[in-house]
Amino acid sequence: MNLEVQWIVGFVDGEGCFHIGINKNEKTKYGIQIQPEFSVVQHQRDIQILHALKKYFQCGQVRPNHGERYMFRVRGHENLRDRILPFFELHKLKTKKRIDFEKFRDVVRMMEKGDHFTEDGIAKIRTIQETMNQKGKKSKI
Amino acid sequence: MNLEVQWIVGFVDGEGCFHIGINKNEKTKYGIQIQPEFSVVQHQRDIQILHALKKYFQCGQVRPNHGERYMFRVRGHENLRDRILPFFELHKLKTKKRIDFEKFRDVVRMMEKGDHFTEDGIAKIRTIQETMNQKGKKSKI
Repeated sequence: MNLEVQWIVGFVDGEGCFHIGINKNEKTKYGIQIQPEFSVVQHQRDIQILHALKKYFQCGQVRPNHGERYMFRVRGHENLRDRILPFFELHKLKTKKRIDFEKFRDVVRMMEKGDHFTEDGIAKIRTIQETMNQKGKKSKI
Repeated sequence: MNLEVQWIVGFVDGEGCFHIGINKNEKTKYGIQIQPEFSVVQHQRDIQILHALKKYFQCGQVRPNHGERYMFRVRGHENLRDRILPFFELHKLKTKKRIDFEKFRDVVRMMEKGDHFTEDGIAKIRTIQETMNQKGKKSKI
């Protein structure tokens, strides 16, 4: 299955998620690991769409999610920097998810500079992350 | 906001719904009203997308849905026959929602012939409707 660029933009406007994971990890200096992740979740009946996205972006994994759902997931700095960010910079999302993408992009760029290894950088990333994916939650902003 | 054709296809693959309402209506011969409906629901933060869809398809309404959600909804035989069906016939959905669309189209065409005014037609439409939008439900097929 071949996916058109604008189809991908529309589908991600509906189904995509730009998420910054902030997890405990005692191996790091401040006990915190920052993990940006781009994902799309679908019912298993549409797993072929997830594989088509993986093929298009030439990175990521298709994995089981909850119940009958599967997830296409991209982690890893180089994948995000070289494949995901340029695509959505060039082909703008049309929903307010674009704002989440822009925050996500800012965090990936901060990590490029190593900010996530500093206490100040972690605090900044945490502040950004708290304002993301607010749809349906009570807005803090 | 202008929407590209393939963006609409991708967005509807994610967020659209093709639904056949079967409601009691004592004014009809068999006490049943068949109401096909195409809809897209979004959080209010993206209500402008719903208005852009309405503008693109030149039909339908944007209305409050549950909570902070709004719905773009197209009902009415001519709107569905002349605007919604031709679009998705020409620009195929890529997810399994395409199968729901095809069943939806079949029902709209049956109604064109007046099948929904016959007992046999209503029974056939009911059988089709029961197999639609099965994602996440236990499949009957």
